[in-house]
Amino acid sequence: MSDLITIVIDTIGGDNGVEVCVKGAVQGLSDHPNVKLFLTGHKSEIEGFLSEYEYDKSRIEVIDCSEEISPNEHPVQAVREKKDSSLVVGLKLLKDEKADAFISAGSTGAILAGGQFVVGRAKGVKRTPLAHLLPTNSTPSLLLDCGANVDVKPEVLLQFAEMGSIYMQSVCGVDNPRVAIANIGTEEEKGNALVKKTYPLLRDSKIINFTGSIEARAIPFGKADVIVADGFVGNIIIKLYEGLSKMLLRELKGAFLSTVRSKIGAIMVKKSMKNTLQKFDASDKGGAPLLGLKALVVKIHGNSKDGEVISAITQCVTFVENDVTGKIIKGFENSEE
Amino acid sequence: MSDLITIVIDTIGGDNGVEVCVKGAVQGLSDHPNVKLFLTGHKSEIEGFLSEYEYDKSRIEVIDCSEEISPNEHPVQAVREKKDSSLVVGLKLLKDEKADAFISAGSTGAILAGGQFVVGRAKGVKRTPLAHLLPTNSTPSLLLDCGANVDVKPEVLLQFAEMGSIYMQSVCGVDNPRVAIANIGTEEEKGNALVKKTYPLLRDSKIINFTGSIEARAIPFGKADVIVADGFVGNIIIKLYEGLSKMLLRELKGAFLSTVRSKIGAIMVKKSMKNTLQKFDASDKGGAPLLGLKALVVKIHGNSKDGEVISAITQCVTFVENDVTGKIIKGFENSEE
Repeated sequence: MSDLITIVIDTIGGDNGVEVCVKGAVQGLSDHPNVKLFLTGHKSEIEGFLSEYEYDKSRIEVIDCSEEISPNEHPVQAVREKKDSSLVVGLKLLKDEKADAFISAGSTGAILAGGQFVVGRAKGVKRTPLAHLLPTNSTPSLLLDCGANVDVKPEVLLQFAEMGSIYMQSVCGVDNPRVAIANIGTEEEKGNALVKKTYPLLRDSKIINFTGSIEARAIPFGKADVIVADGFVGNIIIKLYEGLSKMLLRELKGAFLSTVRSKIGAIMVKKSMKNTLQKFDASDKGGAPLLGLKALVVKIHGNSKDGEVISAITQCVTFVENDVTGKIIKGFENSEE
Repeated sequence: MSDLITIVIDTIGGDNGVEVCVKGAVQGLSDHPNVKLFLTGHKSEIEGFLSEYEYDKSRIEVIDCSEEISPNEHPVQAVREKKDSSLVVGLKLLKDEKADAFISAGSTGAILAGGQFVVGRAKGVKRTPLAHLLPTNSTPSLLLDCGANVDVKPEVLLQFAEMGSIYMQSVCGVDNPRVAIANIGTEEEKGNALVKKTYPLLRDSKIINFTGSIEARAIPFGKADVIVADGFVGNIIIKLYEGLSKMLLRELKGAFLSTVRSKIGAIMVKKSMKNTLQKFDASDKGGAPLLGLKALVVKIHGNSKDGEVISAITQCVTFVENDVTGKIIKGFENSEE
């Protein structure tokens, strides 16, 4: 590895095609003089888009791949069989320590499987959670696990809490992040068997700032910086967040368009609404990191545009510069496998 | 029991006091000539409010209780010890078959505990789920269990599906309700251990119209009439629904008030917005039934007003007229205890 921070961008699998990946890559490169990028995918197509820009050619390398993984494929099987896919080739660069981080808008399942099987877990890490920054009415909260591990043990949730805490401190600059466990009540005796067993581990941990249980109704109000849940519950939370926000805003838009009077009113509230809704915009928050691997893997939304790619590059740079993987390994060096 | 449908209203424990209970009771009585009401609580206070109305005195009976259960008390202990609380006295009327249904805005925990220990389960019912109607952009969906039973077996979730189906058909008039299980993907192999074991039971049931898994992002779009989940996951869903809606609407209101221009615009969109948000108003949807007991117990929101009390009375009438408890018992008569 050179002194540059090396990031792979998988250009295949996003809804908006290769173009937005290339556009975001060129801008990210310009923002970060210490970054080198690998772009994996169809070489001729990538180079076609690259030819539209001026950029430091010594810091972008295109790697031609003959295969694609689609969201309909069985993730584990696809990762095992399609050795020359943009995803597997990119992850292989991480495994071989030729790159520090990897960004993809492709199939979540394949990214999770590839992270596990191609890159592998960092020393001491039991399971690798997918983390998402949830927008709230104050600062964003990191929710993990969002679906990578559905049936887990208390010790695994404790590690999630510790990894999430390191991430929020090192990458998002949150000092002494408040860690909470998603629960159905705030009293210590509340919860299902898993949460009840996890609670004392979190409470007694000397590494994290555990603030207790968080009820789901308090999550949108930013009452915790790190929210721990098993992958089933976390996935329910992240997807309900997405679906409910979309539905409510769509209904509101319908209301605005329903009469001439409300249409005029909508024009007048538009700017204020846009300013307010800005903080719920995912494009400037980076992607969802899969934590605990030997190197950083970031899943960005399938419909990401160049803005998300740029944010994810910045996220990777901060992650690597702050040696989050090293901190995680250090935190877990005494843990049993 | 007389030919009248007899409903108990617990007047203690709601945020808005006895007054809204009495007001709702009098209106409900007027709406339903076949209803008799018991009001449990502090007699003098109840009678004070009643004296403000004209009503059929033969159909309201006030029962004086000397104790109150507060939300801070341990539910099971409170129910066991406070025999003369408005909650326990009311539930005792159900147990003794002097009443058909019970409505309370009091502590959820105490209502659940009281339902179990005072009223008791109907024959064949393994566990009694708390069900909530979730507003969606089309028709409401019944979510169960919303928190009464956190660690359950697949056979229990199957019963929840069956009870929910009977309820939606009999009380809400939904023909052949679509039943789905809350899951993290729509493919049959997705899910945690509980969901994977429950899926085939639901699929093979001849009683319900099982349509498969529902991802949380599809819930707000009304893609199922009955949504089955264990009480932990269901509680997360219902509370996130509540919290996220509240936060987004509050932020929007803030945006509206942020400039003079947006304030004027807000006045112009207000009516259209109100019409749209009407369908998300809980007050006309009744309360949350605790299903599978020997008689109906309905929990209404702590901040309920008279509108919610009236809707809950109508809900109880429909439930009893359609003999939902009888249908549940009939459905489960061959099930193992």
